[in-house]
This record gives sequence, structure tokens and C-alpha cells, in this order.
Amino acid sequence: MPVHTHRKYAAELRELREKLLTLGGLVEEAIARSVRSLAERDTALARQVCEDDRRINRSEVEIDELCLRLLALHQPAASDLRFITLAMKVVTDLERIGDLAVNIAERAEELNAIPPLKPWVDIPRMAQLAQRMLKEALDAFVAADAQRARAILASDDEVDELYRKVLRELLDMMAANPAIIPQGMAVLFVAKHLERIADHVTNVAEMVIFYVEGRDVRHPGSFDARR
Amino acid sequence: MPVHTHRKYAAELRELREKLLTLGGLVEEAIARSVRSLAERDTALARQVCEDDRRINRSEVEIDELCLRLLALHQPAASDLRFITLAMKVVTDLERIGDLAVNIAERAEELNAIPPLKPWVDIPRMAQLAQRMLKEALDAFVAADAQRARAILASDDEVDELYRKVLRELLDMMAANPAIIPQGMAVLFVAKHLERIADHVTNVAEMVIFYVEGRDVRHPGSFDARR
Repeated sequence: MPVHTHRKYAAELRELREKLLTLGGLVEEAIARSVRSLAERDTALARQVCEDDRRINRSEVEIDELCLRLLALHQPAASDLRFITLAMKVVTDLERIGDLAVNIAERAEELNAIPPLKPWVDIPRMAQLAQRMLKEALDAFVAADAQRARAILASDDEVDELYRKVLRELLDMMAANPAIIPQGMAVLFVAKHLERIADHVTNVAEMVIFYVEGRDVRHPGSFDARR
Repeated sequence: MPVHTHRKYAAELRELREKLLTLGGLVEEAIARSVRSLAERDTALARQVCEDDRRINRSEVEIDELCLRLLALHQPAASDLRFITLAMKVVTDLERIGDLAVNIAERAEELNAIPPLKPWVDIPRMAQLAQRMLKEALDAFVAADAQRARAILASDDEVDELYRKVLRELLDMMAANPAIIPQGMAVLFVAKHLERIADHVTNVAEMVIFYVEGRDVRHPGSFDARR
């Protein structure tokens, strides 16, 4: 590759890494704000989350286009090829996490219009965990650090545990007082969205481990089976 | 490209299309069987779905590898590049639909162990719709047919409508008889999984439209905004 083309390529790869982390930051903020809008009953903040989702969507499209340009113009070597194609998969997850944050914000708007069932403690904890997982997953991806990605899988179990706790609590409350079932379900959906967000992050972490180690933690056994 | 390389490339692209459709068939079957295992209280079939998920996972990995090989060895031109990178995104959705079918089958196993609340009619209808949407989406992708992909978006609204119907019905049943809340929730999760399956298919359809038309139906407005 001529030197100037190579420089351009290196610069565009750097741009891709930066754009991914920036998008990650936007998505982290969307998660935090959506749950804050519920916990603090702040409907203006909920609307902000829906507004800001446009930036996330735009960023997804831009990163996709940048990846296609890198693939088309620079014919990247094997490891870069894996990085770029994985980036295209990762942005899809990021964009969908953004959509889930919007769903949470929409539920918050509904729930903020009526008196709260109780103060929510575990839901903000789920959000914090999910947010931290997301940051770690993207850092692990950009640094090609499988160990760091692997640590995320344990946090997913924590989120699932919290989800089951919220579920049990809400089932008890609803059984004791069927009148609150619709409201309880809305809260449950928020918890479920957070659990799904953590699932998306876990998927990203698994893809990163596969990308770094060539071992498929997504499907234990299946990788060996095809050798 | 020398003739023999070009022939190999064309053959591998054909192989990719075929593998995608085969994987699509496996995933369709997983959806159908998971819901049949609930509707017909067939626990052996539920276990079959979990077993067969290994093939889906293996196929995902194989398609990913084939795409990487195509990108690395043949430096595809713009439209093939879009097709191949989109295939890599689509298989991720297909694999996750497979996981959701496994989740449905797991719930079916639980629910089959206790007497049914009632015969489910809308849930099998949701599954049928989701299955048909999936078939259409993959056919539209392989044929690069945006119109066909667009028709899928309407079916997603139908699935959402059925989901809301099931939700309302279950909420009423649970409010009238709080003892059935755990069971009602399990059924609700099945419906929710189906709704998510339809969402995955809708995401695929939207990506296909974008790939064919270069217009971003995923995020109306955002595509123009960045021009």
C-alpha cells in the first residue's frame, strides 16, 4: 500500500475506534438517563432520551458507512477485517440498546403520571451494572482484550439475579393487590428492558472474546465440532 | 479477476445465499416447534428445540467464516460488499431468534408440567406470523427485493397487536385470580419472546430495505440529515 494510502487507512481505523467509543458513551448516557427519569420521576429527562436517540441512530449509520468504506478502499488484512466486520455487528447492538432506553423512558413517562408503587432500588442498580458492562465491553473490543470481555459475563449473571428479585417482588405485590397489576407490569417491563440491554452487552462481549481468541464462547462446543 | 477465481467467487456467493436460506429454514422450524410444544403440551418436542439449537449456532459460525473468507480473498465490489456485510448482521439476528425459540421451549417445559390455564389461540397465530415474516425477509434479502421486505413491516404491527391482546387477557385473568400469576407470567413471557422474534425479523427487513434502496427506514430522517 502506498504510504499516503496507508496513513489514510490508519487514520480511518482510528476514527472508527473513536466513533465506536463515542457512540458507546451516548448509549451509556441513554441507559442512565432513562432509568433516572423513572427513579427521580423526571418526565422532561425521559423526553430528552427519546430526542437524543436520533443522534445514536445517525451515529450507527455513519459507522456502518465508514466500515464499508474501509472494506471497499483498503482491502484490510485478516485481523483488521475481523475488527471492522465486528464493529458493524456491535453498532447494531448499540443502536438496539438505544431503542431499549427509549422504551424505558416511554414507560417512565407513563409511570411518572401516577403515584409510585414504592421507591425503586434494584432497577437503578441494574442500570448501573448494564452501563458499566457496556463501557467495559467497548473498551475490551477496542483494546482487543479478551480477559476484560470475559469479566463482563459474570456481571450479566448479576443483572439476571436482580431481574429475578424485582420479578418476585412485583409478583408478590400484584398478588396481594390485583388493582396494581397494570402498573406493576409497566415496572416489570422496565426491568425486562434492562435485562435485555445486559444481554446485548453480553453478546458483544462474547463476540469480542471470539474475535480475540478465535474461541467461540457464544456456543461452547460448536466451534470444535466443525474443525 | 482471473476466470477460475471469479468462478470460485460466484460459487461461494451462491453458497452464502443457500446457507442463509437453510439457516432461515432451521430457525423457522425452531419457532414453529417451540410454540407447538406449548400448544400441544409436547415436552419431548420442547427438548428437541433445545437440541437443534446447536445446529443453528454452528451454522451462524460457518456463515460468518464464509463471509470473512469472501471479503479477504475476493475484495468484492460495492454491492456484493453490502450483501456480505449485511449477511453477517442477519445471521446474528437469526441466531438470537433461535435462542428465543429455546427460551419459549424452556417455558413450555415448565408450563406442560401443570394443568393449562386455557387453550392458547393467539400465541400460535403470533408464531405463524413470525415464521412467515422470517421466510419473507430472507427471500427478500436474497432477491434484493425491497418491496417484499417492506410488506413485512405491516406484519410486525399485527404481531404487536396480538401481543397486546394476550397481555390484556392475561392481566384480566391474573387480576381475577392472583393464584395464577406465576403461570400467567410464564405464558406472557412466551408471547413476549414471540414479539421479540418479530422485532428481530423487522430489523432484518429494515436492513434489507436500506441495503436495496440506500434509504434508511430504520431511522426516518437521520439518513437525509447526514447528507
